[in-house]
Amino acid sequence: MITTPFTRSFDLQHPVVLGPMGGVAGGRLAAAVSNAGGLGLVGGGYGDVEWLKTELALAKELARRPWGVGFITWNISEAALELALEARPSVMMLSFGDPRKYAATIKAAGCRLVCQVQDVAGARLAQEAGAEVIVAQGTEGGGHGGARATMALLPAVVDAVPSTPVLAAGGIADGRGVAAALMLGAQGVLMGTRFYATREALGHDQAKQRIVQGQGDATQRTRVFDIVRGYDWPAGYTGRALQNPFIERWHGREEELAGNVATEGPAFWAAAADADYDVAMVWASEAIDLIDSIPSAAEVVEQISAQAELRLRSAAGLLE
Amino acid sequence: MITTPFTRSFDLQHPVVLGPMGGVAGGRLAAAVSNAGGLGLVGGGYGDVEWLKTELALAKELARRPWGVGFITWNISEAALELALEARPSVMMLSFGDPRKYAATIKAAGCRLVCQVQDVAGARLAQEAGAEVIVAQGTEGGGHGGARATMALLPAVVDAVPSTPVLAAGGIADGRGVAAALMLGAQGVLMGTRFYATREALGHDQAKQRIVQGQGDATQRTRVFDIVRGYDWPAGYTGRALQNPFIERWHGREEELAGNVATEGPAFWAAAADADYDVAMVWASEAIDLIDSIPSAAEVVEQISAQAELRLRSAAGLLE
Ligand SMILES: Cc1cc2nc3c(=O)[nH]c(=O)nc-3n(C[C@H](O)[C@H](O)[C@H](O)COP(=O)(O)O)c2cc1C
Ligand SMILES: Cc1cc2nc3c(=O)[nH]c(=O)nc-3n(C[C@H](O)[C@H](O)[C@H](O)COP(=O)(O)O)c2cc1C
Repeated sequence: MITTPFTRSFDLQHPVVLGPMGGVAGGRLAAAVSNAGGLGLVGGGYGDVEWLKTELALAKELARRPWGVGFITWNISEAALELALEARPSVMMLSFGDPRKYAATIKAAGCRLVCQVQDVAGARLAQEAGAEVIVAQGTEGGGHGGARATMALLPAVVDAVPSTPVLAAGGIADGRGVAAALMLGAQGVLMGTRFYATREALGHDQAKQRIVQGQGDATQRTRVFDIVRGYDWPAGYTGRALQNPFIERWHGREEELAGNVATEGPAFWAAAADADYDVAMVWASEAIDLIDSIPSAAEVVEQISAQAELRLRSAAGLLE
Repeated sequence: MITTPFTRSFDLQHPVVLGPMGGVAGGRLAAAVSNAGGLGLVGGGYGDVEWLKTELALAKELARRPWGVGFITWNISEAALELALEARPSVMMLSFGDPRKYAATIKAAGCRLVCQVQDVAGARLAQEAGAEVIVAQGTEGGGHGGARATMALLPAVVDAVPSTPVLAAGGIADGRGVAAALMLGAQGVLMGTRFYATREALGHDQAKQRIVQGQGDATQRTRVFDIVRGYDWPAGYTGRALQNPFIERWHGREEELAGNVATEGPAFWAAAADADYDVAMVWASEAIDLIDSIPSAAEVVEQISAQAELRLRSAAGLLE
């Protein structure tokens, strides 16, 4: 069993956290990860209150161990935050924006604050907000993120906030990545895409199949899906998705797309409802090369942890 | 001592290779890395024959162990390649482009072929060319490179070319990165930026100072320095440099810059000659957060290897 100060402090059996993927990490997936000894986070996403109510209830019902919720900081709705805190999650994770505004409310509710950051400056801000744990998220990860990559960002964050446990996110989808993250100074990992391709994840089967079949060489960061959906993400954040004809058509022509949302928007939403992923996005990591099946979330937690343990044990064999 | 099939096959004492940095990795630096038990590669760059003659002679004179040369594949001049092979380096590294064209010539000269690749497709091509070693280079690295990041690219390349030793490059500047790379399946690492900030590196002291002082949050990939220098890099490659006023002025206005090379070009070259790094570039990695001194190359090789060894030894301590 891999243990770090983080796993001990959060009473985890494995150093594995589920990324709070909006619309994908529902209550069932979060509970499955927590019950397997990791830490499951429900994806609060853009704060759809009805969705959240259902998924929080499910997490509460199914989870036998601590679980949490994650929100997109720049887009938090007070109603959604309040609803989430009422469900008494152990952990609240904030990503993408200045967490200082919400830190006091979250802590006052007895919730442990985790912040996901995309650069060293963000890590310093999270520390100021009193984050108990900081997730250093590399640009290779699926979904929204920044420009810095995990390999160099992670040790720089560890050095910048020496008294705060740091987790690694972005580009990790097997035990090799977990072992590497621990060598870089992380006390655990947070994975998104690997958990997207599990049975408990919400989201269409076709999306999961595309992740299994996709190539890491064929994902990219883009703003086109935010533009067509009318989400006004702050500068510096883009979403990593599988390349598809919609990206091919619009990437590089963002202003034109913005001017065509009246027609492109409805077509996009219809495609999303139809699971037509030539138009709609499948957020996905560069690490999809390492994903070739759709197991249960518990199998992912256990297999990846076991593989990481084997790797760490093998380290001594590299030394003469 | 860290040993892998790669270090044994190349008779190295440390799993550390010097990136063949054009204009920076001269004969003195390459020899210093090789003599310290790593593998030093002279940076053949754009094939300046006079520069190469001098630096190859220096490497030959100073190196007491195997050393090599690296070239930019899409831009190889036959004259430079011939000159390099005449110097009888043990290793020839090709980066950025299809290596199949030159593989036979290099091998016929008794030189061991190493290929640096930026994606999984490139790794397959390198294998086809008969590369003895493949370097998976992540986008976080300094200088030219592609879009994929080390954390997910490296294990994908290891899986794609299972019978070829793979090295990791991009974002590695201390022993933590070496240990992480080994956990991901690499048999060694190649570092550029860390060796730029050494005493033996060619290049101005002011450039080295900027690397020591710079922040990983403030580097970026750009084509502006290629455009102003008139280098016609193929699509997909950009150079990572420290952000500076020249980038601020021209990045995003590449076509306009291309139209102004007649005036901007001479101004750029004058600035480069003057070590004016508000205009000229300092190629640098996101890993500069981890670089805070300008030691000798031997100290870098030894300290990083020792730190990596300590990390690997500590791995067992993470297991209960
Ligand atoms: C489908 C998907 C949706 C995501 N949605 C969110 C989100 O709503 N909030 C958030 O903080 N992170 C989100 N992320 C990012 C994850 O939290 C995590 O940082 C990322 O997935 C890590 O990289 P990986 O995909 O390589 O594991 C999402 C990721 C994916 C793949
Ligand atoms: C100043 C500089 C010049 C470089 N020039 C070359 C080059 O001419 N040919 C090449 O193959 N790689 C070149 N590189 C890339 C290195 O080979 C290597 O891939 C990269 O530096 C690895 O990332 P790191 O900087 O994080 O160590 C250069 C890198 C730097 C920093």
